[in-house]
Amino acid sequence: MQIAVIGKAECTEEEYEAARAAGSLIAESRAVLCCGGLGGVMEAACRGAREKGGTTVGLLPDAGQGNPFLDIAIRTGMGYGRNVVLVQSADAVVAIGGGYGTLSEIAIALKIGKKVFGYRTWEIEGVAACSSPEEAVSRAVAAAGRSR
Amino acid sequence: MQIAVIGKAECTEEEYEAARAAGSLIAESRAVLCCGGLGGVMEAACRGAREKGGTTVGLLPDAGQGNPFLDIAIRTGMGYGRNVVLVQSADAVVAIGGGYGTLSEIAIALKIGKKVFGYRTWEIEGVAACSSPEEAVSRAVAAAGRSR
Amino acid sequence: MQIAVIGKAECTEEEYEAARAAGSLIAESRAVLCCGGLGGVMEAACRGAREKGGTTVGLLPDAGQGNPFLDIAIRTGMGYGRNVVLVQSADAVVAIGGGYGTLSEIAIALKIGKKVFGYRTWEIEGVAACSSPEEAVSRAVAAAGRSR
Amino acid sequence: MQIAVIGKAECTEEEYEAARAAGSLIAESRAVLCCGGLGGVMEAACRGAREKGGTTVGLLPDAGQGNPFLDIAIRTGMGYGRNVVLVQSADAVVAIGGGYGTLSEIAIALKIGKKVFGYRTWEIEGVAACSSPEEAVSRAVAAAGRSR
Repeated sequence: MQIAVIGKAECTEEEYEAARAAGSLIAESRAVLCCGGLGGVMEAACRGAREKGGTTVGLLPDAGQGNPFLDIAIRTGMGYGRNVVLVQSADAVVAIGGGYGTLSEIAIALKIGKKVFGYRTWEIEGVAACSSPEEAVSRAVAAAGRSR
Repeated sequence: MQIAVIGKAECTEEEYEAARAAGSLIAESRAVLCCGGLGGVMEAACRGAREKGGTTVGLLPDAGQGNPFLDIAIRTGMGYGRNVVLVQSADAVVAIGGGYGTLSEIAIALKIGKKVFGYRTWEIEGVAACSSPEEAVSRAVAAAGRSR
Repeated sequence: MQIAVIGKAECTEEEYEAARAAGSLIAESRAVLCCGGLGGVMEAACRGAREKGGTTVGLLPDAGQGNPFLDIAIRTGMGYGRNVVLVQSADAVVAIGGGYGTLSEIAIALKIGKKVFGYRTWEIEGVAACSSPEEAVSRAVAAAGRSR
Repeated sequence: MQIAVIGKAECTEEEYEAARAAGSLIAESRAVLCCGGLGGVMEAACRGAREKGGTTVGLLPDAGQGNPFLDIAIRTGMGYGRNVVLVQSADAVVAIGGGYGTLSEIAIALKIGKKVFGYRTWEIEGVAACSSPEEAVSRAVAAAGRSR
């Protein structure tokens, strides 16, 4: 099972801690954490997952190394085109905060029928609004299980 | 100058005529029309542009031929990843109606600083809402001119 | 009809003139010239095509403007991934000289069944070796006609 | 450390066993095995790696599940464009047998300066020919270590 966590590369402290909690829960659910591989929400989710012994995958926009908490670095070299690859690779998506890049990922996910669970993110029809990162992850894990 | 028209592959008759008008105006402005190359809003915009002697470019998701009104067919074979290539290739974007695919294009456009002019489309912060396709195209052409 | 000309961004004067001749002949055949949009062989082919009133398309690896002889600039932003999009978009391929990037394009073209006509390029099984750019273009145009 | 194994989706029994041995050695070297995620050489390498407790990553051309021995499935949906992402993501490349798709990966790898170690594959300048899969993997692991 692969769960994506999406959000901004520059985020608030509150979003960072929410993403870290989400990453921890994904690892505890024995799912693989997939993300865009950079800083902010992406780094926080990887950090949380690694703290619980989970596996982290970063779909990088460039040919770089990404954040320090990646087990697997996919160097797409295709800029925002990697947003599409990320949501296609996920069995369900957790969105935390986020700007236009995150919105593009939410839109592609909904377009291809992947479930999106949001915490303080874009209020778009089709996104399931959750009141905590814990709720978002547990619902994402359940949806991912049903989708397989 | 390259102007993208984005919208659904299956659209209402009203959206079809709006896109056709937009395509005509883009051609009359001597800009190249870029689109996703398929039916609906994409086909209508190409049709309108061709009726005025304009040039049309389709960024296809697959390796197909696209709609019958394409001068240039770019067979990306990368599915929705082509949405990113489309908005990157445009100097400004006109959105007519649209679903989640269109939303992903709007989001990427705003992320990379391309101006988006919308007619009966997603009401997202950053999209300039227009009351007619004519207004959308004329403002897009002006913005594209300033961006070069 | 879309014919790709592939080769190095830095080329010899002899390769430059060969590519320019190829571009001219493609335009005279009323085909659209597609290329990687940068300098060297790509620029020379565009220059030759424009000198004969042809249409030129550049599939750029980045979000730049490409060489000065492009009518249409597709800003893929996907680096060498654009090599794949280029050969997929062509009805036939003309290779002039070339390094490893050109070899990757030849390989993808042969993989997907596109005909490749080479002038002083890689000697790979499946590439039709030609003794002049004129021969390469005329055979490419004929093959592209048959493939449609 | 990430090592790519490249080769055909339909291969001979001898190539299958060579790829399986390569996968085993990559896992024993504690490197992550990356591949195109499909059958033949790709499946064999994953199988060998999994038999030794290694981690396997498949960069799939489509949105499918890939072969049964994948830990991580990256669903690129970009066809042969994924060949480019694969070699960019590898610290070194092992080629076993192979057709035109493999040749495209070898070419991109050499273009971007990644070392390629081949066993019964294309004889292209820049590919280090090895007399066994064991030699190819041990040299690839050493090269990957130096490149980091």
